[in-house]
Amino acid sequence: MTSPASAARRTVRVDLGERSYDILIGPGLIASAGAEIGARLKGCRIAVVTDEHVAPLYLEPFLSSLADAGIEAVSQVLPAGEKTKSFEHLMTVCDAVLGARIERGDAVVALGGGVIGDLTGFAAGIVRRGSRFIQVPTSLLAQVDSSVGGKTGINSRHGKNLIGVFHQPDLVLADTGVLDTLSPREFRAGYAEVAKYGLIDKPDFFAWLEKNWRDIFSGGEARIEAIATSCQAKADVVAADERETGLRALLNLGHTFGHALEAATEYDSARLVHGEGVAIGMVLAHQFSARMNLASPDDARRVEAHLKDVGLPVSMDAIPGGLPPVEVLMEAIAQDKKVKSGRLTFILTRGIGQSFVADDVPASEVLSFLKEKHPR
Amino acid sequence: MTSPASAARRTVRVDLGERSYDILIGPGLIASAGAEIGARLKGCRIAVVTDEHVAPLYLEPFLSSLADAGIEAVSQVLPAGEKTKSFEHLMTVCDAVLGARIERGDAVVALGGGVIGDLTGFAAGIVRRGSRFIQVPTSLLAQVDSSVGGKTGINSRHGKNLIGVFHQPDLVLADTGVLDTLSPREFRAGYAEVAKYGLIDKPDFFAWLEKNWRDIFSGGEARIEAIATSCQAKADVVAADERETGLRALLNLGHTFGHALEAATEYDSARLVHGEGVAIGMVLAHQFSARMNLASPDDARRVEAHLKDVGLPVSMDAIPGGLPPVEVLMEAIAQDKKVKSGRLTFILTRGIGQSFVADDVPASEVLSFLKEKHPR
Ligand SMILES: NC(=O)c1ccc[n+]([C@@H]2O[C@H](COP(=O)([O-])OP(=O)(O)OC[C@H]3O[C@@H](n4cnc5c(N)ncnc54)[C@H](O)[C@@H]3O)[C@@H](O)[C@H]2O)c1
Ligand SMILES: NC(=O)c1ccc[n+]([C@@H]2O[C@H](COP(=O)([O-])OP(=O)(O)OC[C@H]3O[C@@H](n4cnc5c(N)ncnc54)[C@H](O)[C@@H]3O)[C@@H](O)[C@H]2O)c1
Ligand SMILES: [Zn+2]
Ligand SMILES: [Zn+2]
Repeated sequence: MTSPASAARRTVRVDLGERSYDILIGPGLIASAGAEIGARLKGCRIAVVTDEHVAPLYLEPFLSSLADAGIEAVSQVLPAGEKTKSFEHLMTVCDAVLGARIERGDAVVALGGGVIGDLTGFAAGIVRRGSRFIQVPTSLLAQVDSSVGGKTGINSRHGKNLIGVFHQPDLVLADTGVLDTLSPREFRAGYAEVAKYGLIDKPDFFAWLEKNWRDIFSGGEARIEAIATSCQAKADVVAADERETGLRALLNLGHTFGHALEAATEYDSARLVHGEGVAIGMVLAHQFSARMNLASPDDARRVEAHLKDVGLPVSMDAIPGGLPPVEVLMEAIAQDKKVKSGRLTFILTRGIGQSFVADDVPASEVLSFLKEKHPR
Repeated sequence: MTSPASAARRTVRVDLGERSYDILIGPGLIASAGAEIGARLKGCRIAVVTDEHVAPLYLEPFLSSLADAGIEAVSQVLPAGEKTKSFEHLMTVCDAVLGARIERGDAVVALGGGVIGDLTGFAAGIVRRGSRFIQVPTSLLAQVDSSVGGKTGINSRHGKNLIGVFHQPDLVLADTGVLDTLSPREFRAGYAEVAKYGLIDKPDFFAWLEKNWRDIFSGGEARIEAIATSCQAKADVVAADERETGLRALLNLGHTFGHALEAATEYDSARLVHGEGVAIGMVLAHQFSARMNLASPDDARRVEAHLKDVGLPVSMDAIPGGLPPVEVLMEAIAQDKKVKSGRLTFILTRGIGQSFVADDVPASEVLSFLKEKHPR
């Protein structure tokens, strides 16, 4: 089978001066990975990191594409799931990369979802104080979000993503065809981040999603279009604020609540995956904004309706297994990295596509809001 | 007892644009740490990391100086020694810092030698993707070398310092008085790095050291002078080449051999400490340069004589416990981070104070040179 017309392929450039890079988006990119990498990073050797779900599906095709282009490679397969973003696995990856004698001019590749991308990017950022890095995101979430922007990291027992570095990739290859093997649940979770870009500052994109989401789920042009629009949105924010000192915080819409829910469910993906936490978090952020008289409750209802249509959870009681008391959620929120000198920083909204950074949100308001929403 | 006149205090500025910082050098700086830090980092909280040798001597004075300045602090004491630069202890420090709720505006402090500085700086560089960092170096080596320049890291089973980040401190406080409790052996080891700056490109400084080394060892003005000159030398190189792409490699004079010897002795400080490896390595680099007809053998003899006067080891047979075969040393040299695409990069010299980067040194020459020098 030949790969679909590369005419459908899109390129988004992340503009970061010397560290600028391309995101290639389209079907068949795993099959042409060797050629794309070989054309850009001459004579490099490669260490591929992937997980046990992705390996049986795409490791062989990826490695043979490299081999066809004359690129030497070694690979490391890790367990799948959020718990893999740990010090233990970071050490495993660093050891594997060093053991393979990957030098500064060579490259480390993340072939997988956001977990593999975050962990591998962190390892690439610290091995020899920074090695070249290529993202080959295979989940929708990784394609539209985690593979773009250079944030890498692992989790700590004190919270998610608290340990890491900024380390930009040299290239991102987003093969939209591989999303067909992603479970519907994971696809939906990634879709939450797509919707997020509309909710941040693209009301027309959100309206387009309300109409076209079924086409995105089934594949083809609409999917490529949605991914490219999302990558462009993230690339714009990253280019304007690489180190997350201001603007970039908007990308955290829904994430403060979302991270607290992930912590409360102990990162157990059987109960909640990242994108699901974000979906609930975005609905909560819109509801909280309405409660603070910043936005109309109709907007919150519209967000809730769309995410529900798609099949995403939209409230805390949708999480199986129950939640700890509200006080525990507040703890997690206060430890979240978006807290500055004690005050709570949240992304709130004035309506669909009108999000903003509110850095003086009273903890007491959040607490009483959560008490209302919390399932008994 | 009042601290000696602060008139003796020197300041060296490391010029790195937005990330510029001061190195304060002189006696009594631990006693005035609270005031110095408080004046620069308003309202910050502090997590101090130190080791079990330094803690009983200086942790209390340091903490009370902070308390006097109204600065809240927590502390973490680790085992002393090179083996502490491990993933395990990195995790301990990250956990302690996060557990103390140190946020981006707060600061992590390394109170100790190069081991504590490298490990703690690395932790500061990855906690919340970068926290503020203060170096309070207490060994001579740390004061003249490791605390300046932002290189941080840990060791891997594949080699020394292979994992880390560049993370510049916000301030360095080098209290020259604390060096009086350093063991003579550790003082000498640090002195090897002082001599290195002369050998790189300061022949007059090397000649001054040949005359004045006894005064440096006994303390007072000559010591402050030697430390300030060393810091200035390192600051100049770092400012010109922060990320070690060229010039900065000169700082590795003696280090390729030195690291191989450290690996060969399994980082067992009973047998060899870093500065001793560097001393032997610098003698070897001068001898090898003479063998390659780049420099006069007289220069190699002069370097050997001075380091020997001071009490440093100057040849491989001075290392107790024997060494592995030459081939094992070559392995370590080839895995060392200064190898580019298979060729060997060494710092060689044309004479005292005339070092240069040679990036095409034939491995075969190094091998036969080592065979000659290697103790049977
Ligand atoms: N760095 C960033 O900027 C950033 C942004 C957002 C999220 N994240 C992180 O991303 C992570 C979540 O990413 P994720 O949702 O991709 O999780 P994931 O990596 O766990 O992938 C989800 C699941 O799908 C499987 N999978 C991936 N691709 C597949 C394919 N093509 N076919 C079949 N199965 C496939 C994986 O094995 C896994 O079981 C979280 O850790 C989150 O913190 C990071
Ligand atoms: N980051 C860099 O640029 C850089 C440069 C050079 C060396 N290094 C690293 O530095 C490390 C060596 O540093 P080091 O020689 O300071 O080792 P160290 O930190 O192990 O200190 C040496 C010994 O002296 C003790 N000590 C420290 N200060 C003391 C004091 N005032 N009184 C009594 N005892 C004291 C320590 O507890 C330790 O036992 C190596 O790991 C090396 O790789 C890093
Ligand atoms: Zn997200
Ligand atoms: Zn050194």
